[in-house]
Amino acid sequence: MRTLNTVSMGMDIDKSVAVVGYGLSRFNRLDMRSYSVYEHAAYAYADMLNNSASIKDLIKENGIDAIITSTSDPNPYSASIIAEMLNIRPKIANRVESMCSSGANAIITAYSYIVSKLCKSVLVVGFDTKDSIGMRLDWDDARGVFKHPAHWAAIYARAYMREFNLAREHLAMVAVKNRKNALSNRYAYFYNSSMLTIEQVLNSKPVVEPLRLYDCSIPCNGASVALLTDYSTAKRISNYGRDEEHVWIKGIGSSSIGAGINSIKDLRCMYATVTAARDAYAMSNVKPSMIDVAQVHDAFTICEIMAYEDLGFVSKGEGVYALEGKVSIPDVNTDGGILGRGHSAGATGVAQLALLTDAIKRNDDYRIGLMHNMAAAGTSASVIILERE
Amino acid sequence: MRTLNTVSMGMDIDKSVAVVGYGLSRFNRLDMRSYSVYEHAAYAYADMLNNSASIKDLIKENGIDAIITSTSDPNPYSASIIAEMLNIRPKIANRVESMCSSGANAIITAYSYIVSKLCKSVLVVGFDTKDSIGMRLDWDDARGVFKHPAHWAAIYARAYMREFNLAREHLAMVAVKNRKNALSNRYAYFYNSSMLTIEQVLNSKPVVEPLRLYDCSIPCNGASVALLTDYSTAKRISNYGRDEEHVWIKGIGSSSIGAGINSIKDLRCMYATVTAARDAYAMSNVKPSMIDVAQVHDAFTICEIMAYEDLGFVSKGEGVYALEGKVSIPDVNTDGGILGRGHSAGATGVAQLALLTDAIKRNDDYRIGLMHNMAAAGTSASVIILERE
Repeated sequence: MRTLNTVSMGMDIDKSVAVVGYGLSRFNRLDMRSYSVYEHAAYAYADMLNNSASIKDLIKENGIDAIITSTSDPNPYSASIIAEMLNIRPKIANRVESMCSSGANAIITAYSYIVSKLCKSVLVVGFDTKDSIGMRLDWDDARGVFKHPAHWAAIYARAYMREFNLAREHLAMVAVKNRKNALSNRYAYFYNSSMLTIEQVLNSKPVVEPLRLYDCSIPCNGASVALLTDYSTAKRISNYGRDEEHVWIKGIGSSSIGAGINSIKDLRCMYATVTAARDAYAMSNVKPSMIDVAQVHDAFTICEIMAYEDLGFVSKGEGVYALEGKVSIPDVNTDGGILGRGHSAGATGVAQLALLTDAIKRNDDYRIGLMHNMAAAGTSASVIILERE
Repeated sequence: MRTLNTVSMGMDIDKSVAVVGYGLSRFNRLDMRSYSVYEHAAYAYADMLNNSASIKDLIKENGIDAIITSTSDPNPYSASIIAEMLNIRPKIANRVESMCSSGANAIITAYSYIVSKLCKSVLVVGFDTKDSIGMRLDWDDARGVFKHPAHWAAIYARAYMREFNLAREHLAMVAVKNRKNALSNRYAYFYNSSMLTIEQVLNSKPVVEPLRLYDCSIPCNGASVALLTDYSTAKRISNYGRDEEHVWIKGIGSSSIGAGINSIKDLRCMYATVTAARDAYAMSNVKPSMIDVAQVHDAFTICEIMAYEDLGFVSKGEGVYALEGKVSIPDVNTDGGILGRGHSAGATGVAQLALLTDAIKRNDDYRIGLMHNMAAAGTSASVIILERE
């Protein structure tokens, strides 16, 4: 059992933001015409209330000061519509969108609303559909016909293979690990499915060489919510006597290097991730070696291996050694990640926060966690560091 | 000449956010297929740079920490796309959407990013097209066939007429005033157009009784930008020696009472506006009587009269007395407002901030200003109070 990490040097009460509640829907590929995407989001909210009686009491007494939706769904006014459905009358209601990193952006906005004292509590609601426009790169004509994200993951993988030690078997190991982790995650698309083998990944349908079908995450309908509060509100929840410790946001980093393929100068590295991680570590005073558990943006198997490096868990080119157990890294995507949970553009980042918080709350071995959310072939990335105390 | 108002009690440097730059495109109804909506946004940014050499220097030296787009345009990733077009590499890039109050919401988010210390400078970019989905209420089945905002403005107007002293001539006075103010606003759709008369409004095409065509704002293509910074960055701009004083955000209030028509319980009053104003006054320690100049959400003539009351400039039912000059109120919509400028969902709130700041900077009689931005038949509203010091 590893030693618990801690950076605690006394809480700065004015800058403290806790993740006090979270809930998800089961990620799925049902026909969304049969029940609305807003109802789907409401299921995730109901899941949060079912998970915590003290949250239910808190909301009944204090309401919620802001609701932020995170989605690529193009319909307008979703935050106010969902607020009305959930019987919330917030001060602030708006939608945040940045394709697949909408979730992290909404969380960063929620953090800011609380630290700036405009709000004491903010509900972030991520939702999207399996056919979301948030997962396509149709707007970038510079990409030519190569607009599907799988094209770009494949280009990254081939560039990486030319330079470093990476075989298709290594990619398959990521898929096998994350699908295995998803088997016990009741929210995951691959919950309770059968175990995947290396051979099955290697022999699955070719998508773009070197990536096969099981190297790619599956687009899903999904919804996820997280309730963030200030210090005094979080402490009142503790006083209900059902929770002794909270998980706090300790570091935030974000970077956008551009939008089009021309902004990517070196395919061996995801620069937006490197920059975002650097800022999040600096803000939290955490080193990569202190992270116990991480949610990284494994939209494709290659992304997880590169994330090990770009988040500083291992040196550049050594990602596969972590997979082979030759280098120690944090536990990554313990719930199955995007490969196991399914990918739902606006819901993914919020699901990462929810399930990272859940892992830290439930596992005594975890104290410091990191989430890593990207968009549009890695042109944007956000890193958020959490700590239980 | 009126006495200048001031609330200044020493700046709280940590909570100070200045509007240091702003720019607009000329609002228009051109065919947007002929040049992209993103290029339109870039024109507003170029206008800001042309307005201030010191802003250009600042951006060259420091970059911009965040870019927030405010739009109902459904295309994803607009903040990163526009950042790339403008050669900005921000930390944070995302879109904020809340129909016609997207602008105020984006400004509130920008304020929070700065006060929470995640950013020193944030560029807000509002843009939309004349056929934006952000100006239709298609999602609210409870409204039956009455989905056009003009239906709801007419229902407000008739409810108001039943209770209070309001004639169609009063409504027409709002249109005449704002169209007159727009004649000298080079960004306004009605810039340099001919003067409108009361008779012309009364005889214009009926839309929904009692509203005629000139009681309604015209949907436009529009773009507007505002650059917000923290205290030390703003002071460095002063040190370029070209500006002595800045305009600061002193108060913020926001309220969402719901989304559908069922959330409106009393048609004589816009409750979200009342609540938002109350919070903005409290935060800024400003009373309604201290406001020198205001941008109110005059999407329809009735909205401006109700805003006089709901913002506390006059008592309920006395809005028309202000129009008749029997009661003194702040100068309202001095640039032409939405009726004179044209309405462009995501651009409108940012244009309000830009032109309110401009009015305060250029006119020695103005020190304290208020902007009021609404969405979806008044179900959401935000109020922001500015002060020059």
